[in-house]
Amino acid sequence: MKMIAQHIAFGGVQGVFTHESIACKGEMTFAVYVPPQATHGPRPVLWYLSGLTCTHANVMEKGEYRRLASELGLIVVCPDTSPRGQEVPDEPTNWQMGKGAGFYLDATEEPWAEQYRMYTYITEELPTLVGQHFRIDTKRQGILGHSMGGHGALTIALKNPERFRSCSAFAPIVAPSSADWSAGAFEKYLGPDSAAWRKYDACALVEDGARFPEFLIDQGQADAFLDAGLRPWLFEDATKDTGIKLELRVHEGYDHSYYFISTFMEDHLTWHARRLG
Amino acid sequence: MKMIAQHIAFGGVQGVFTHESIACKGEMTFAVYVPPQATHGPRPVLWYLSGLTCTHANVMEKGEYRRLASELGLIVVCPDTSPRGQEVPDEPTNWQMGKGAGFYLDATEEPWAEQYRMYTYITEELPTLVGQHFRIDTKRQGILGHSMGGHGALTIALKNPERFRSCSAFAPIVAPSSADWSAGAFEKYLGPDSAAWRKYDACALVEDGARFPEFLIDQGQADAFLDAGLRPWLFEDATKDTGIKLELRVHEGYDHSYYFISTFMEDHLTWHARRLG
Repeated sequence: MKMIAQHIAFGGVQGVFTHESIACKGEMTFAVYVPPQATHGPRPVLWYLSGLTCTHANVMEKGEYRRLASELGLIVVCPDTSPRGQEVPDEPTNWQMGKGAGFYLDATEEPWAEQYRMYTYITEELPTLVGQHFRIDTKRQGILGHSMGGHGALTIALKNPERFRSCSAFAPIVAPSSADWSAGAFEKYLGPDSAAWRKYDACALVEDGARFPEFLIDQGQADAFLDAGLRPWLFEDATKDTGIKLELRVHEGYDHSYYFISTFMEDHLTWHARRLG
Repeated sequence: MKMIAQHIAFGGVQGVFTHESIACKGEMTFAVYVPPQATHGPRPVLWYLSGLTCTHANVMEKGEYRRLASELGLIVVCPDTSPRGQEVPDEPTNWQMGKGAGFYLDATEEPWAEQYRMYTYITEELPTLVGQHFRIDTKRQGILGHSMGGHGALTIALKNPERFRSCSAFAPIVAPSSADWSAGAFEKYLGPDSAAWRKYDACALVEDGARFPEFLIDQGQADAFLDAGLRPWLFEDATKDTGIKLELRVHEGYDHSYYFISTFMEDHLTWHARRLG
């Protein structure tokens, strides 16, 4: 692991790191904010997964999470959204596929299967690396994300309820198998049989029996992608009578941008901190 | 004036606008955050001036000012740092001169004199335009800035004490006439006679009798530009025994970036709000 940038902020340290990823077969970049409390011992960790076209940098620069992470003593890890590098397969004119659009899944189809292994990267490789280099309390982990990253957070929490104590999302893609935004990518990454898509689809996972205690979801009412890409009401339907508690808040006037995310970041970090103890 | 972007954030509206500037003879861009309280009547305004290489966008995206501006009911205006456009004179390989490096002065030398009129733009043209389109309480104005924009804030406040009730700066250039960063630009913009530079130099202005009640300055101890470009101790010397109150805070570990600025933005906005009533 190599540190490529480091800045003091709100009494803690915002770092950016690269490493050679085994899962993604190439160099990957991620950001970690370490709050001042970490000098005294292990701290809870929040995994923030970003949306389509983003890297680790969007939330690091625009997410406004450091003030609260510092106050609450949370380590915040912000991974990239796909494998990177010249040799990585891509569809340069399609922002919903390839680089920047890894969808937090392990692809099974060519030419994607070799490097598009973001599920393994996020759930196995990166946690091991981060655990080796930062003072993380592995018993206190939460996960959140935005848009495609909200999809990542919901599905990863549903599949790993023993690992995560808390999960939340900003404007998540809750049913990627059938959303305009993602169905095309799922077919290319996972093949034409949509049965294989269900384990990367939050609504389908719940229908198939996956459980997580509770979710917080914030959604902007003026989000241009609400009807075709996001449709949080489908997750409301899917979780009904399952014992899963869903707090879905819809905010008038807010769009899909980091202006929306930064506004409600405080609520999310406070919500996670309460559950992480 | 044309709106080119608008996002709801923290209950208010972050807008970006363009207009044909008379002072700079070309299209200029600026950002305005309007807090929710403005729907009930005029609000105090803060002018934030940015540093070398920046546009209106850097602080808008990374400055983390909206939460407090919303809470305190402050309108925040973030102008660009120079004239823009293909026909504007520039030194493309020199980041300390030309586009992005207007130094908030009115140039007198060719080829700069026609369009590099940022002092007139910031103190006359833009306030008039903003006053026409936003509900500003012109009796309650504050000014702040970063680096070259800190220089802008200090000098503009010193020259217009009747207009501004409060002034603060992050890592300002306090003595641009003699700083590595700016002396070259001053010579090109204002000619070789350094007597003409004094009215755009905070230390020289104070030496020459300009007064402002008090300043807040935050400076990072790990700022790479501290010794050659910034040297806030010169302003401490200049203001000594003048009746000007200077609160200069030096913060260990902090650098010149928006990680530093965003950390102390809350202190600055609170400080201004207290003085703006």
